[in-house]
Amino acid sequence: MSHNHSQAPKLGKLFLVPAPLDFGCDHDVDLQLVMPLSTLTTAANITHWICENAKTTRAYLKRIDVYSSLKVPVQSQVISELPRQVHKKGDHLGSFDAKPMLAAALQGEDIGLVSEAGMPAVADPGSSVVRAAHDLGIQVIPLVGPVSLLLALASSGLNGQNFAFVGYLPQDAQERSRRIKELEQFALKSGQTQLFIETPYRNAALWAALVQSLQPNTRLAFSSGLTLPEAVSKSAVTQHWRKLADGQMPEGLSNHTPAVFLIGV
Amino acid sequence: MSHNHSQAPKLGKLFLVPAPLDFGCDHDVDLQLVMPLSTLTTAANITHWICENAKTTRAYLKRIDVYSSLKVPVQSQVISELPRQVHKKGDHLGSFDAKPMLAAALQGEDIGLVSEAGMPAVADPGSSVVRAAHDLGIQVIPLVGPVSLLLALASSGLNGQNFAFVGYLPQDAQERSRRIKELEQFALKSGQTQLFIETPYRNAALWAALVQSLQPNTRLAFSSGLTLPEAVSKSAVTQHWRKLADGQMPEGLSNHTPAVFLIGV
Repeated sequence: MSHNHSQAPKLGKLFLVPAPLDFGCDHDVDLQLVMPLSTLTTAANITHWICENAKTTRAYLKRIDVYSSLKVPVQSQVISELPRQVHKKGDHLGSFDAKPMLAAALQGEDIGLVSEAGMPAVADPGSSVVRAAHDLGIQVIPLVGPVSLLLALASSGLNGQNFAFVGYLPQDAQERSRRIKELEQFALKSGQTQLFIETPYRNAALWAALVQSLQPNTRLAFSSGLTLPEAVSKSAVTQHWRKLADGQMPEGLSNHTPAVFLIGV
Repeated sequence: MSHNHSQAPKLGKLFLVPAPLDFGCDHDVDLQLVMPLSTLTTAANITHWICENAKTTRAYLKRIDVYSSLKVPVQSQVISELPRQVHKKGDHLGSFDAKPMLAAALQGEDIGLVSEAGMPAVADPGSSVVRAAHDLGIQVIPLVGPVSLLLALASSGLNGQNFAFVGYLPQDAQERSRRIKELEQFALKSGQTQLFIETPYRNAALWAALVQSLQPNTRLAFSSGLTLPEAVSKSAVTQHWRKLADGQMPEGLSNHTPAVFLIGV
C-alpha cells in the first residue's frame, strides 16, 4: 500500500494571480503599492502560466522580477494563451474544455492563471480553467491583489451588502438606454447596487446615456483609474451630474482610463 | 482672491482601509501576506478612525505598527465607533447621518474607515460614512487588501462576468429553503452567479439546506478560511455534494471559520 501511495503523483496547484490595474495606461504603478509581498514571491516561483496574452504576461513577470527574483528566466517560462472568442457573450464557459491546459499540474507543476488586469476570472476570462481544476481535483488558491469592482463599490457610498456586477451594457444607443432603465428599476425596487463597465473609449457615450436616462434622484457613481495616481471616485444623484455642461464628463472620467460605473440608492 | 484661496481649509481624505480576514480566527495571519506595503504605510500615518469596534481597531493598529511605525501611539489615536443597529436589514443607510463623524476631515485630518474584516462598506457597515464624505466634498481613497467575496468568486469556476452578492439568507428553515430556490432559479435563468454568507456557527445548517434544496445539476461552491493557512475553495454540482454522508460538510468547511457560498451554472 505504501508503495502505491508513493507512486501517486503530487498534483500542482492552480494559483489565481492578480495583475495591476494599469493595463493600457501611460505609467506603470509600483507593484508594491497594489500587491502584498507574498503575492509577488508566490508568483515569482511559478513557471507555468495560463493567460489572455503571453506578451503581457512576460511583461508582468519582468515587473515581478524586480521585487522577487523569478525562479526561471522569463524566456524559459511555459506560457499558454486562452483561446479567444470561444464563447458568446454571457456564456462564461462555452464549449471550451480547459482540462488539457492543466496537464502540467497533473505532473506536479504549479500553474498561475493571470488576466490583463485585476483578478483572473472576475470580469475577465478564466473561469473555464478554474472549473477544470476543480474537476481534476487540483487545488485552487486565490492570491490577494487589486480588484477594481470592489474598490469602486466600497468608494461609491452605495449599498455594499447587496450588489450585482452585470458586465457591459449594449452598444446600440436605444438598447443601452433601455438596459440602463431596466437596471435602475431593479436597483430601486430591490436596493441592489448595479455595477457595470465599458471599454474606455466609450466612457463618454455611456456617461451621457446614464445622465440622460436615469431619474433625477437615482444615485450615479464612478471610479476611474483606480490605484493610479489620478484615481478618482465620485458619487452623487443624477440631477447633480445634469448640472454639468451638456455632455460633459465629470473631472476624472475620460475616454482613456478604465472606469467602473454604479447606480443605486 | 489669492488671500481667500489661502484661507480655504485643506480637506482631509477618507481612506478605506481593508482589514485581514482572520477576525475571530485562532491565529493572526502575517499582514504582509495579505496587504500591499503601501496599504500598511498609509494606514500607519492615519490618526483618526471610524470603525465598528474600537478595541478591534486598536488591535489592528498594533499589528500594523510591526510593519510600519504608527505616526502616533495607539492610545492617542482618535477612534469613533459607528452606531450599531441604526438600520434594519437591507437598508444600508437608515436614518443615520454620518457627516458629524467626518468633522476632523473638514479640519484637514485624514480619516481611516475600517471594518472587522475585509473591505469596509462591502458586506459590512460603512457606506453611510462614504456617502457623507462625497456629500461633503471629501476625497474617498480605497486601499488594496483582501476581499473574501471576490477571492471566493474567482476560485469558484462560476460566472465572474455576471454575479451578485445578496448578503445573508433567512434563518428560518422554510424561508431559507424558499430563498435558496429563488436564488437558484434566478441564477439558472440569468446566468448570474449568486453569492451569500452566513454567520460561521450556522454554516452546517446552511450547507445542509443547500444540498437538500438545490437541483442535482446546479453548481454549488464555497470558500472557507480565505487567506488563512487552512483556506479551502471547492466547486461541484450539487449531486456530487449529496454523495457525502448525510448532513456532512465537505472537508474544509466548518462552523468555526468564515465562509462564502456560491451557486450558479
